[in-house]
Formats: sequence, structure tokens, C-alpha cells
Amino acid sequence: MTQVIDLNCDMGESFGAYTIGLDQEVIRHVTSANIACGFHASDPNVMHKTVALCRSHRVGAGAHPGYPDLLGFGRRAMECSEEELIDYVIYQVGALKGFLDYYEVPLQHVKLHGALYNTLVKTEQPFLNLIRAVKKAFGDVIFLTLSTPLTAALKKEAQQEGLRIALEAFPDRMYTDEGELASRKLPGTVLKDRAVIADRVVTMVKEKGVNSVNGRWIPMDIDTLCIHGDNMESVAAAQEIRAAAEKAGIEFRPLGSFL
Amino acid sequence: MTQVIDLNCDMGESFGAYTIGLDQEVIRHVTSANIACGFHASDPNVMHKTVALCRSHRVGAGAHPGYPDLLGFGRRAMECSEEELIDYVIYQVGALKGFLDYYEVPLQHVKLHGALYNTLVKTEQPFLNLIRAVKKAFGDVIFLTLSTPLTAALKKEAQQEGLRIALEAFPDRMYTDEGELASRKLPGTVLKDRAVIADRVVTMVKEKGVNSVNGRWIPMDIDTLCIHGDNMESVAAAQEIRAAAEKAGIEFRPLGSFL
Amino acid sequence: MTQVIDLNCDMGESFGAYTIGLDQEVIRHVTSANIACGFHASDPNVMHKTVALCRSHRVGAGAHPGYPDLLGFGRRAMECSEEELIDYVIYQVGALKGFLDYYEVPLQHVKLHGALYNTLVKTEQPFLNLIRAVKKAFGDVIFLTLSTPLTAALKKEAQQEGLRIALEAFPDRMYTDEGELASRKLPGTVLKDRAVIADRVVTMVKEKGVNSVNGRWIPMDIDTLCIHGDNMESVAAAQEIRAAAEKAGIEFRPLGSFL
Amino acid sequence: MTQVIDLNCDMGESFGAYTIGLDQEVIRHVTSANIACGFHASDPNVMHKTVALCRSHRVGAGAHPGYPDLLGFGRRAMECSEEELIDYVIYQVGALKGFLDYYEVPLQHVKLHGALYNTLVKTEQPFLNLIRAVKKAFGDVIFLTLSTPLTAALKKEAQQEGLRIALEAFPDRMYTDEGELASRKLPGTVLKDRAVIADRVVTMVKEKGVNSVNGRWIPMDIDTLCIHGDNMESVAAAQEIRAAAEKAGIEFRPLGSFL
Repeated sequence: MTQVIDLNCDMGESFGAYTIGLDQEVIRHVTSANIACGFHASDPNVMHKTVALCRSHRVGAGAHPGYPDLLGFGRRAMECSEEELIDYVIYQVGALKGFLDYYEVPLQHVKLHGALYNTLVKTEQPFLNLIRAVKKAFGDVIFLTLSTPLTAALKKEAQQEGLRIALEAFPDRMYTDEGELASRKLPGTVLKDRAVIADRVVTMVKEKGVNSVNGRWIPMDIDTLCIHGDNMESVAAAQEIRAAAEKAGIEFRPLGSFL
Repeated sequence: MTQVIDLNCDMGESFGAYTIGLDQEVIRHVTSANIACGFHASDPNVMHKTVALCRSHRVGAGAHPGYPDLLGFGRRAMECSEEELIDYVIYQVGALKGFLDYYEVPLQHVKLHGALYNTLVKTEQPFLNLIRAVKKAFGDVIFLTLSTPLTAALKKEAQQEGLRIALEAFPDRMYTDEGELASRKLPGTVLKDRAVIADRVVTMVKEKGVNSVNGRWIPMDIDTLCIHGDNMESVAAAQEIRAAAEKAGIEFRPLGSFL
Repeated sequence: MTQVIDLNCDMGESFGAYTIGLDQEVIRHVTSANIACGFHASDPNVMHKTVALCRSHRVGAGAHPGYPDLLGFGRRAMECSEEELIDYVIYQVGALKGFLDYYEVPLQHVKLHGALYNTLVKTEQPFLNLIRAVKKAFGDVIFLTLSTPLTAALKKEAQQEGLRIALEAFPDRMYTDEGELASRKLPGTVLKDRAVIADRVVTMVKEKGVNSVNGRWIPMDIDTLCIHGDNMESVAAAQEIRAAAEKAGIEFRPLGSFL
Repeated sequence: MTQVIDLNCDMGESFGAYTIGLDQEVIRHVTSANIACGFHASDPNVMHKTVALCRSHRVGAGAHPGYPDLLGFGRRAMECSEEELIDYVIYQVGALKGFLDYYEVPLQHVKLHGALYNTLVKTEQPFLNLIRAVKKAFGDVIFLTLSTPLTAALKKEAQQEGLRIALEAFPDRMYTDEGELASRKLPGTVLKDRAVIADRVVTMVKEKGVNSVNGRWIPMDIDTLCIHGDNMESVAAAQEIRAAAEKAGIEFRPLGSFL
């Protein structure tokens, strides 16, 4: 039987004269794009172009809001209040929605960026409050976050009140026995071998789980897989991995079309 | 017969720890608010509060986008391309719309700020292109700008293609014989006497025109009057002028309710 | 015998069209100014004017660098590396020094702002490394920080290698039994009564210590007292407190003249 | 006889996670670096590294201040007052000087960037006032600008009051009959052929002039030549052109060593 999965990638991270990412290339291999919104990366012109790119490639468009820290690329935690964070997210998603509405492209999902992603994913009530605020402002959009035992529970809890959470896994990252991402600082936790990564994609999608660093089987709730498009190597890897997975009977479709 | 007019004021110009304007006071005397959107002034938290304020006072909410120049408060012209400007406006209006949608407050109008207002109002095609882009992204919102012979013609031209332009006059400013605002630098061109300003409000609304600096009668197309709320004096003036105008049979209502 | 002490105040915190602080007033009552440097507050024009103000009032001029967070006024901790922080400080102090050199005003001291002040004061090696870097770039300037048991020890340690640390106390704040500032959130820890504050100034200077919240005597190493100039009330308080202390035989002089 | 000339290049234009320029490569082929100062490009960490790079390669270090417009990379003119501009320059040069002083590298020169360079070079009194302010703040530094008939005259006038101006030419750009840079928009005005550019370098240095687009000989006052280091091609070109010029008996040395 064909299994369906989404493939998401950060996009639209250039700023003014500065370029990050090979958006024109990687857009051809993913089904959903997390579009930076001008706080940690991007600017209005880049957002305009990125939305147009998503439309022409029929890629699911999502907002990718971050901390107001362009200098740190949103990678540094900032001591903000819950109210501040919620307003930062509404502002950024709203700004992106202007361009989406301009092109009549639906807002498929919201995924937090960098340190904001890492901070919120470890909380429960603040995270739910944020997701509620996003729904209040933007309607029934999918909230995309890391698949962990905690978020898998949160996803079910949220469903009760009509909030949609989608969970992502990283096929090129190793996981701990607890089902958390193993720190990048540990040797060997970021995989490079494309065949190995492609195998993990198939396992993740078909068997709904992954082997931990210690070889222990970790069941996971996975709606989408996250890949990178920073350089030609990662783009080539994306293409190869997707092709291998498709051969194994996996179909890639935007999150919004099947969730 | 009662004449209806709108009274608009810039609002939500505070930023972080910095405060500008007496929003809590002036909101009680106006019918429409031009809400700064974070480029020349404001921040997400201020926008959230300002939208809530508009809702609780049933004041028409408008976006007030400016140049990306917080340091210069949007008062300095920047050599931007038409594409850049359009995207800056879509971004800012979209960001505000996030908060409006959060509170189910409709976006009534868009009014450019400062140097952006001054630059665009003197153009024809670039201005129309911007208004078209705003409509494409945000639907049938009113575009508020200065009433001049040029914009009065533009308003009619725009109507042909379904674009709504509203024109504003400044009761505390003197006008040239050509129907343009007399430079602030000329002595006596900014009026302070509240009784005189109130008289001009009545004339502007009832007789659809104003006497120029040289005493010449200038017919004007006026949909809304712009006032200021920077300090207690201007707020008191607003209250007094509005009361005088109401005594003279003028009714103040949000732009969107009668245009 | 006359005792000499310095009186310092944050200054130059306005930004563009935004005003914070009554610099023109408070400058007349202090002997040292901590001048914001454009990251958490201020801009080049404000810095220029603030340095000119210090010169004309013969007030000791210090740099007051903060986190790169204008939106949060530097009050939110950011997860920066030691290298990042040192470079942020060198950048800001250097920028201020441009204006000081323009007016031939010496750089008397450096005092960190807000969350940066709070973060570093609790560390030992990172703080010393920062002070060393400042000395390497700007020579023999005084580093001003909070007087605590930890910093009193650090001050002596630093002297060994030729680094000058000056310690400040807050006469309007209560202290714990451990000689730390009691949290502002606890009731009664921020004093308002000017006579009480003036008494504490005299005690702090003459007896080198303060009574804790529990009435325990805390010896303190104090080189300067910090006051506020945000509003007319605090300026009036500064004037009154200084006058009372002068009557009690205390002389106020810029830090650099006696340390 | 050996002729001496300086070769300058913009450097340190990266920002946070964003990279522009191949500084590590191009630094090996130039004798002076124009270091961005954080307004149109760069950040404190990039400035630190760039100054360290200049020191280790014994390249003359100059400040390269621009408009406060990171989004536009300083390429868009902004309507600023003379006071604003002077303070923006003092701020930026001062910030760089912090890092130079940290490494005991002298500030060799100041060269404006982008739209600020283009705006000021066409003025006389505002430009002189800026150069005077820079001297007042930073002492006897060289002010580097475009060689035109106007600036050649300004250079002599400035010498009278002890101000040092250095003039630069662009070997890869065509000049009008009036000795001005021909617009980049005209076809053929930006040269690509390295042999041709190398020939022009030799002519510019040895014969103190250049042939205009119409083949007319234009005498020019030239102290330094400007090249680019944006990509591997321009770096290779720089290396080749310099080698060819050295074969023709031209010696390259930092501006400060011979002016």
C-alpha cells in the first residue's frame, strides 16, 4: 500500500543583498515550505518571491516565524514573555499572509524557527496558548512541530479543541532512547550517507518509528519529514532520498492535502 | 440636514519602552485610527493593544504603513523601487491584519505614513499600482490620502476599476491657491486657535472647500478630517473642535460606514 | 572629615522621535553619566547631544552598552556567546568614544545595561575577560558594576592585573542579608521616601554599609551611588537627596577624579 | 622608475549568518581594506575578524560607513540632514576604531559606502564639513573618495586646512569625457577583460589619466585603485591584474605609507 508523507524545508531566508539557501532548486523536491517572515531572516521582497515560488511549484506554504533577532538568525533564546511571543508570531504570520492572499495561496501551516521552536516545544501551556492564538487569528491552520513523546500527547490533547498539530522527524538526525533528537555536538548524530538517510525515511514512514543511537526501537508519530536546502550537496541529497523513497512506494504530498 | 464626516488620527506609534501619543485619550474623540505597523513606529505588542483599543471604542481601524526607518520615524524619503514599496506595504498591512483578524475587527482603510505618504501622493501610476496591489491582497479596503486636485481626479479614475479612495483635509493647516497644503515652514500656516479650526471643520464639511492663504475659495473633495493626538493640548483641541462641529449639525462616523 | 562619592545616572536613552529621560534636568544633579550606545537605546544624534551635555556640565562620561535589543530596551537576556558579548561591548564603547574624542571628553567608565549588567555580574571569568578586552581596546577606564560580596572580591583580584572596578550601591533599594539587591517584586523593596533615601546615602558613604531587609548590618564597598532621572519626581528626589547628603558633609565628584 | 599605488577593496560585509565577499582570499591581493561598520553591512563579530585579518596581512585598515539601511545594503539614498550624516559617520568610524585599538592597528582611512558615497561626492561644503568632523574626532586620517575634477579641486582646497583626501579610480569602469564614471547601465562601461583592465591600471598609475568612452584623454589625480572581491572570478582577476602591473614596474603599498 502507498504511504503518504510530507517533505518540508525552510525557505525564503535571504535578506536584502544577502543570500541563504538554494530556494529555486530545493523547491522542486519538497512538498511544503517553511517561509521566514522577516524577524530572524527574510524581508518583504524575499517573502513575495518565495510565495510566488511556492505557488508555481504547488508547494504547501507555511509561515516560519522566529525571534526578533536578525543578527543571531533567530538561533539565540531571548527572555520574552508569553504575550510578547504570541504577538511576534501573529505579526509575522499576518505579514506572510498578506503575500499569500495576494497570490491566493492558502496558509497551510505554521512552524516556529530556531530557538523559538526549541523553547516552545518543551513547554505545554505556553505552546498550546500560542497555537490557540494562531487559530484565533488565522483559522484552521496546521501547527508543525518536532515529534517527541511530549508533543505526540499534546497533539491528541489539542485535537479535542479542534487544533491541528503535525509532527516532524529528521531522517538525517539520530535520536536518543527517549525519542528526543540527540545533540548535534555528539559525534555521528548527524548522518551524511544518503543511502542510510533514504532507508530511514522509508522506515520512518512505513514503520512509524526509528532506531535510537543505542539501537532501541522508538515508535514515532510522523506527519512530515524535514530536510535542508542550504547548499548544492543538500539539494542533491534531497532529490536522491526522495527518489529512493518513491521507489519504495512512498508518495510525497503537501501536509494540508492529507492531514 | 446633517452632514456626515470621519475624523482620523495616527495611533499606536509607541515602540517597546518608548511612548508616543495619548492613544487612550484621543481614541475617545475620533472615528478612525491610522495604526502604525512596525516599520517607522510601533511593535507587535503595541499593535495588539491598539487594535483592542479600536475594537472597544468602535473606531474604524486602518493600517498606517511607512518606510523601514524607525530611526527617522518614517519621515525621511528613501530611494526605493516601486516593487520594494509595494511589498513593504503588503507586509505591514498583513501584519496588522493578523491582529485585526484575531479580534474580528475589519480592516477599514490604509493610509501611508510620513515621507511615504508625501512621495506617493505626488505620483499617479505608482500610486495606483500600490492601491491595486493592496486590493489584490486585502480586498475592498479604502485607501485614504490627501485631498488635492490631483488625487480628486485619481479618486474618480480609480472608481472605474473598483478602487475606493478617500480624501482627507487638515482643518489646522492653511492651503495654497492651488489647493495644496502650504508648507509648515511658512509662518501662520499651522493654526492653533480652536475656534478658528472648528469653524474650518464646519466649512470644510458643509461647503466642501476652504479659503486659501490668499482668501481664495478652494473647492475640495473631503471624506475625512485628520487631527493629532500627540499631547494633552491636541487631545483637548480635538474634543472641543468635535463638540463645536456637532453643535453645527455635523455627525462623525467611521469612514467605512458611509463611503 | 569630608567623604567623597560619585553619583551616577543612566542618560541618553532617547531614540529618534522617541524620548526617554529628563537628561537636561538630571545632568545638573549627578557627577557621572552612563550613556546609552545605540543597541538597547539611543542613536548617533542622541549620543552626540548627550556627550555635549556631559562636557558642558563637567560630568564624568561613561559608556552604557547593552544587548542588541532596542525592542526590549536591553532588559531581556539573550543567549550570546562570550565572544559575541565582548564584541558588542567593544563596538558600542568605540562608537561612543568617537563622540567623546570629537569633544575631547575622556571616557571615564563603562557600565553594562539591563540584562547584560545582570548576567555578567553573576559570573567571574566571563566578566573579567570582558573587562580585560575593554582595557585592551580603550585603556585604563573604570569598569562600574553592582557592589556585592562577589564583585568586591573580583575588584581586588582585578586590581592585581591593573584593572579598575568601581562598585555601585542603590540608596533607594533594599538589600538581602547576603548583600544582594532584594527583588523589586517584593513589597517595600523600592524606597520612595526621600528623607529615608537621603539617610541611606549618608550611611552608605560614611559607614560603608547598609542595613538589610532584616535589619542586619551589611558592610559594602561603595564607590558610586546610582539614581534615576526618568521623570520630574525622580529628578526632584535626586536634587533633594544630594542637598541633604552635602549638608551631612558628603562631597559629590566624578568617579575618575578620586578613584 | 617604480611608481607606487594603493589597491583598495570593500571588506567585512558579512552579517550574522549571512556571508558576502571572499575576504580571506582578496585580502592577499590588496593593500587597503574598506571595512563595513554595521549600518549597511557587517556586525561587531565580523568587524573583529576583519580587523584581525587586516593586521595579519599588514593591509591598511579603513572605515567604510554607510546609511543606516541594512535592508538596502546602503545603496538607497536617504533624506538625512547634514548633522544626522556626520553623526552616523562618527558613530560607525568610532565603532570600528574600538576593534582597531584592540589590535593596535591604526585607522588609515575613511571611505563612504554606496549611496552615501555617491551623495556626498557631489557636494562641496557638506562633504568638507564631514571630513572636518572626522578629523576632529579621529585625527589625521585619510579621506578616500572618487577622483573627479570636482574632488581633485576639493583635495587641494582641503590640504590648505590640513585635511588629507585620497582619490580613487576604477580600472574596470569607463569614464565620460568630463572625467566622471560612465553609468553602469550603458553597455560596455564595465570592463571584464583582465588584460585590458591591467593595461588601464598601468596607464592610470604611470600616465595619471585614462581614455574616456570617446577616446579622449582625461588626466586624473589617482592615489588608489578600487577593485572587487565578491566572487572567485573577481579575486582571480585582482591577482592577475596586480601581477601584470607589478611586472610593468608598479609597486602596491598601503595608502598611509606614501600619501
